[in-house]
Amino acid sequence: MQFLENWLKLQNVAVVSKVGNKDSEKAAINVTRKLLAKKSKVYTISPIQVQGAKTIESLEELKKIKLDLVITLGGDGTTLRVFRNLENETPILTINVGGNRGILAEITIDEIDNALNQIQKDKFFLDKRTRVTASCGGKEFPPALNEIYISRTNLTKTAEIEIKFQNDTVKQKMDGVIVATPSGSTGHSFSLGGPILHESLDVLIITPVAPVYRLESIVVPDEKIEIISSHDCNIVMDAQVVKSAGFEETITIKKYKKPAVFVRLKKRGLRQMSKLGF
Amino acid sequence: MQFLENWLKLQNVAVVSKVGNKDSEKAAINVTRKLLAKKSKVYTISPIQVQGAKTIESLEELKKIKLDLVITLGGDGTTLRVFRNLENETPILTINVGGNRGILAEITIDEIDNALNQIQKDKFFLDKRTRVTASCGGKEFPPALNEIYISRTNLTKTAEIEIKFQNDTVKQKMDGVIVATPSGSTGHSFSLGGPILHESLDVLIITPVAPVYRLESIVVPDEKIEIISSHDCNIVMDAQVVKSAGFEETITIKKYKKPAVFVRLKKRGLRQMSKLGF
Amino acid sequence: MQFLENWLKLQNVAVVSKVGNKDSEKAAINVTRKLLAKKSKVYTISPIQVQGAKTIESLEELKKIKLDLVITLGGDGTTLRVFRNLENETPILTINVGGNRGILAEITIDEIDNALNQIQKDKFFLDKRTRVTASCGGKEFPPALNEIYISRTNLTKTAEIEIKFQNDTVKQKMDGVIVATPSGSTGHSFSLGGPILHESLDVLIITPVAPVYRLESIVVPDEKIEIISSHDCNIVMDAQVVKSAGFEETITIKKYKKPAVFVRLKKRGLRQMSKLGF
Amino acid sequence: MQFLENWLKLQNVAVVSKVGNKDSEKAAINVTRKLLAKKSKVYTISPIQVQGAKTIESLEELKKIKLDLVITLGGDGTTLRVFRNLENETPILTINVGGNRGILAEITIDEIDNALNQIQKDKFFLDKRTRVTASCGGKEFPPALNEIYISRTNLTKTAEIEIKFQNDTVKQKMDGVIVATPSGSTGHSFSLGGPILHESLDVLIITPVAPVYRLESIVVPDEKIEIISSHDCNIVMDAQVVKSAGFEETITIKKYKKPAVFVRLKKRGLRQMSKLGF
Repeated sequence: MQFLENWLKLQNVAVVSKVGNKDSEKAAINVTRKLLAKKSKVYTISPIQVQGAKTIESLEELKKIKLDLVITLGGDGTTLRVFRNLENETPILTINVGGNRGILAEITIDEIDNALNQIQKDKFFLDKRTRVTASCGGKEFPPALNEIYISRTNLTKTAEIEIKFQNDTVKQKMDGVIVATPSGSTGHSFSLGGPILHESLDVLIITPVAPVYRLESIVVPDEKIEIISSHDCNIVMDAQVVKSAGFEETITIKKYKKPAVFVRLKKRGLRQMSKLGF
Repeated sequence: MQFLENWLKLQNVAVVSKVGNKDSEKAAINVTRKLLAKKSKVYTISPIQVQGAKTIESLEELKKIKLDLVITLGGDGTTLRVFRNLENETPILTINVGGNRGILAEITIDEIDNALNQIQKDKFFLDKRTRVTASCGGKEFPPALNEIYISRTNLTKTAEIEIKFQNDTVKQKMDGVIVATPSGSTGHSFSLGGPILHESLDVLIITPVAPVYRLESIVVPDEKIEIISSHDCNIVMDAQVVKSAGFEETITIKKYKKPAVFVRLKKRGLRQMSKLGF
Repeated sequence: MQFLENWLKLQNVAVVSKVGNKDSEKAAINVTRKLLAKKSKVYTISPIQVQGAKTIESLEELKKIKLDLVITLGGDGTTLRVFRNLENETPILTINVGGNRGILAEITIDEIDNALNQIQKDKFFLDKRTRVTASCGGKEFPPALNEIYISRTNLTKTAEIEIKFQNDTVKQKMDGVIVATPSGSTGHSFSLGGPILHESLDVLIITPVAPVYRLESIVVPDEKIEIISSHDCNIVMDAQVVKSAGFEETITIKKYKKPAVFVRLKKRGLRQMSKLGF
Repeated sequence: MQFLENWLKLQNVAVVSKVGNKDSEKAAINVTRKLLAKKSKVYTISPIQVQGAKTIESLEELKKIKLDLVITLGGDGTTLRVFRNLENETPILTINVGGNRGILAEITIDEIDNALNQIQKDKFFLDKRTRVTASCGGKEFPPALNEIYISRTNLTKTAEIEIKFQNDTVKQKMDGVIVATPSGSTGHSFSLGGPILHESLDVLIITPVAPVYRLESIVVPDEKIEIISSHDCNIVMDAQVVKSAGFEETITIKKYKKPAVFVRLKKRGLRQMSKLGF
């Protein structure tokens, strides 16, 4: 978590709701109206239409618009989806509507008025989080905020997976491997035995999936990690985008050039912990 | 482990080697000759041919032959494959040739003469192991000695999996679930955090795969377990046979009617432990 | 869980509350009165006094009385304490008052009238649970329903602990070892990574505590387990009674000759699971 | 791992062997002679005496001498003991003699000549590692390179332990808690389920010991951690020094003002991994 210029205009704001979720669509319309009343130029994503706001066709078009803020209404899936479609370091204010745990969320819909006021009075901070990106065979895949999951394609073959970091190589038969960011430490990596990381750390977690001889999660600086599987595998970004790699192809995972930026109104700390019930 | 009649004829013996492995094929020819010298009728699997022995076309044909013993030369994969293709409680003598850990193996190829002598002198015991079988949509799938692994098909959807046992239901989001026998406790279930079980126990292990909120392995009596996934899934028997089930279809897992029977020459006990290096 | 004679007189009943807990003492007086109204002879433990009931000085005296039933009001600690002080297979009806999780409890205080009625109508079953007992240097220690925890005495020495079972020995440096029953599988063993076991199983769990090289829990038939530590250690029964053993002394753990018997009114199954929140 | 001035005089060198270990004492004498031949002033610890070297009475006296280098011969215990007794950032060259895993060791005794040559030719780097120190009731305890282990004193009481970091508090019943450095990530914390950390990271691992409801290791920036136990507890530094704290007393754990400095001759990377057998 880095202290940045605490100054945020609300001139151009996009409002994004959870796909196909009535509650979050209703909340999005509500938030859009509040923003219009504050004289913001507001963008909504089709099929959400609000008089006075501009409706864009799809999330992908967000990349072309210069935005001051995006407000997401939904669960963590919605937030992950938006970050993947932002070109710049546009901050997101995350509102939990219909999400399960909403670990990434900052506020609930009841707190929206107060949140917009705090933002206008510069009473917030920007929480910048490390993201990762995988590349393979000359192609770079979309960035992930939580994790990149490499999973063998063939259920009857246990892949031998080689993990290279700095000058070291760890090699073992396993079903796959997860490279998670601190943000993703409470997600898929956690479900497979990984530790919980403070969100501010500049590190990555390598969590082996079903290693034949137990192998613990390894936490490393956020430098280049290379992964080579003896069998074909899928590469999954934030459980939303699936790509593939051939056997023996090197998959390179690196810190993404731009962080994900959250607008935070509350205290710093282990915010993931409380969402997990600890 | 149950004490049985310690008496085994070597009249009809099949010899099976690891598919495509030269060392184990050579060892199979060697063992076949030893058995022929002992006046056994010996069956080999094509392409293994030995003068005086009968070559059958495929493993599936073993079902039709009345056998006193099968000798496997290979790793655990070979042994698992043979057991799945035996209709009766024919015992197997497992010889580790080219296997990785060979947790199921009893002897190495150097010990074969001694082993055949011990068998002829009734100095052995039969080690009967629980097997499991899954059924779904009216079809029963081939039995598994180690485990049945139920795995979501879609990498971008976390399935909600319901596990029913006796009068209880455990329900959680996870990637899949493994139902392992004591024999399989050192296999895939172990890789995902499951306990090691004494081979003789009449129990099954339910090991959740990547549960969203950590859920430990559960050990239960070897009675019916029902599993229902909110999304389509694959059902994998001993990492060798893959079937599929639709979402919300009940997958029923039960103890298989016939155990797997091993010829054992050495002391009883936690034989899996030493193979794991403990 | 075994089906037994479903017949229980309420002629001689002891009522035991959590030591020093006002709520459970009040509940005990209440229950005692209900039993007296049903013409039972009731025993309370000092300082609890109820007109018409007999007050005995301490829990230890329960051993001398022939009882049909004991009713405990408190948490699991109270139930464990009572079982350790019962000589015979006297069943216990466990009422959760002021307990944390009350994994062993059957009912809450609101359900007492219904429970006594069900008992009188023989609508209950007896749930018999394996217990364990440790002995060392010729002395047998009090039995434990949940677990026996062997822990090095010296915090600056990592003990080498030898675990012998049947013909096998596992030896490794660790801080201690827990031998838990199925009832205890959700207790201390669980906290240290052990599996959850169905209460009815005739098995024991060996859970290593902080093994230098990771060693998983091992589940074995409820036969003799011998443990030898290279350094002095404590032997703790159900986290309530502490004994000691010298270095290299053999600690023998065995199934206790008499099970713990619970009166159960509800369905059989994985009753521990729901108490854990699954 | 930070790149520092690669320049190290061998004018004043101390040689320390494992207490009471003949092999390491013999090796120490050998190394001392090699250093004397290089015109170094050499200090040995009583009872080791070598003609031409100065023998000091105890490790504690090292603090008073201005040293360029310490050479340790023994296992990790010896290295940990020496670091605790160095006032300054004196680098240590660690030689594994008679150690078990020797995770902290750089070379074996056979490599000593080459190592001294490399040092004289400035072909080495200094590997600086975070250390931690605990304080309680106004007293600061000796620093630890690996970990500080807080353990309840009373085996029949499960302590409620409060862990405070930045603005967050995690509170749960458990037996104790370990705060480990990256160096200590392969030690006691690992044995209790903690992740493996790259040695260069500026983080600490908080590993709960036997938490009643499973709680994973948490990795945080190396800032102040406060721990409060509801029951008396021991505070153990590197499994070598034991102090105590009363119930409800705040134990403060912080990064120690001076790092431990190792002389390294080989490549950087996950050096702990290979020592663990991965």
